[in-house]
Amino acid sequence: MIPASRPASGSLAALGEDGLLRLLTAHWKIDPDRVLTGVGDDCAVLRGDGRNHFLLLKTDAVVEGVHFAAHERPEWIGRKALARALSDLAAMGAVPLAAVITLGTAKDESARRLRAIYRGIEGVAKKYRVDLVGGETTRAGQLFLNVALLGECRGYRPVLRSGARAGDLLFVTGRLGATRARRHLLFEPRLAEGEWLARHGFASSLMDLSDGVGADLPRLARASGVGFQLDPQAIPRARGATLSAALNDGEDYELLFTATPSHAKTLKKKWPFTTPLHSIGVMTPRGTKSRDAIFAHGFDHFKQR
Amino acid sequence: MIPASRPASGSLAALGEDGLLRLLTAHWKIDPDRVLTGVGDDCAVLRGDGRNHFLLLKTDAVVEGVHFAAHERPEWIGRKALARALSDLAAMGAVPLAAVITLGTAKDESARRLRAIYRGIEGVAKKYRVDLVGGETTRAGQLFLNVALLGECRGYRPVLRSGARAGDLLFVTGRLGATRARRHLLFEPRLAEGEWLARHGFASSLMDLSDGVGADLPRLARASGVGFQLDPQAIPRARGATLSAALNDGEDYELLFTATPSHAKTLKKKWPFTTPLHSIGVMTPRGTKSRDAIFAHGFDHFKQR
Repeated sequence: MIPASRPASGSLAALGEDGLLRLLTAHWKIDPDRVLTGVGDDCAVLRGDGRNHFLLLKTDAVVEGVHFAAHERPEWIGRKALARALSDLAAMGAVPLAAVITLGTAKDESARRLRAIYRGIEGVAKKYRVDLVGGETTRAGQLFLNVALLGECRGYRPVLRSGARAGDLLFVTGRLGATRARRHLLFEPRLAEGEWLARHGFASSLMDLSDGVGADLPRLARASGVGFQLDPQAIPRARGATLSAALNDGEDYELLFTATPSHAKTLKKKWPFTTPLHSIGVMTPRGTKSRDAIFAHGFDHFKQR
Repeated sequence: MIPASRPASGSLAALGEDGLLRLLTAHWKIDPDRVLTGVGDDCAVLRGDGRNHFLLLKTDAVVEGVHFAAHERPEWIGRKALARALSDLAAMGAVPLAAVITLGTAKDESARRLRAIYRGIEGVAKKYRVDLVGGETTRAGQLFLNVALLGECRGYRPVLRSGARAGDLLFVTGRLGATRARRHLLFEPRLAEGEWLARHGFASSLMDLSDGVGADLPRLARASGVGFQLDPQAIPRARGATLSAALNDGEDYELLFTATPSHAKTLKKKWPFTTPLHSIGVMTPRGTKSRDAIFAHGFDHFKQR
């Protein structure tokens, strides 16, 4: 007998976010003359003018009750909305250019709270030099913010999820599993680190950690057609974090990337940031038994936990 | 005494959509070396590579219960979501390049309905040659679709709202005030017409009609710092439409534009489209008493009607 709590097949809970996105977009075809990568990476990448110019396009929404609680500090809500999208540009090594914001809000929302949310957006935009160039507002039953970002790589190529090869070393920036308040609202997008990795050609694949290593590393491995071996002891944990929290809580917005053994040596020597850098495993040939027993779920908005 | 139904000052109902957007974004400064126009026009315009290359960025959302009813044909919902954003590119004379879609949806939504909505998006994308390059899904209390669009003008300048001068003639494409079903779901974005007007330098200002001439013409006049005189008899009405419907119902997504008298002559002669073209008035010096007694409201999601 199927337990009553099991989601019906075809329901979104059964599909999960990845499954729903696949269902809706897997058949989308890109024109390789115009598009380097479409659905399935952190951003879409369009070819720009000349061989080493690329335009990156990203859309991302935060929804009240899903990505933040109604009582949270309004400035932090706005901060998160833009910083999340910026983290996806960092995840390809791109430089942000401009953002446009859609605000969905109830009719009885207070203008003061909305202004505070926008101050949060403006603070992040200033810090990371993003031009805020457009906005729309619409009535909605629940507050949401959608950020659309344009970025570029000029003079170098963006790093895709799909470039990892067996033998590459696996790295992560920062420390994982900090308390929820610190992670999910106050993280810094790793734009400088991502750009540095891409510009110097150090990373063979790159993504950001939104759902936790436990959910995101298998995505990177799948996109690259390889397996992985993770060294759980090597995972850098925030003060007080359990291994499970570091792996599965998500919303760290740190960078996860791979490098060839020779690049790995150089990059560890030349890493110019105070942001911690740790090697946490190695990529293996496809089909290698991966140490995924420790992977619980990662965070999925649709899947039942 | 203030009537009980009057919205509290500072509430969104009192501000309206334009007022809310001004409150949140009026202090945003653009860097004129990088940005041609930011908030306040149909799209944001960034300077591209070279003197006559511009990148356009647009974000736009449709929300269930606000922009479409739950019972409406899912394909038409998707159609509308993308066509609305395309109409804003048409409104500057730009050519669409790529779109990324954010879907917000309840956990118990049917996957079949979502696929049908996406089929609607795909049909419009194919027709107007937009690359669908990315998507996100998120859980939400109510279905919404946010479309972010990248477009360009290559070899010519986009037409802003702010270029109308006193003496310019006022034009509108198509016929206004059709039945709601025909207008708000099945309109065609006037991309070819907009591009033609911009490429040949025929339009001094240009926008699309989302809220009706009654609400949108004053916006164009304000952006250009001019007044206007409208000839109500000249307004092309859809079969059976009253003048009030043609002026105020909104969601026609036709183009409203101005042209100097000499350009007006040429463009009427050379207009290569089957889409109707009508001259409906003239722009006047600022402060001229405009014939705005007939303007009721236009459509505003926040304002009480």
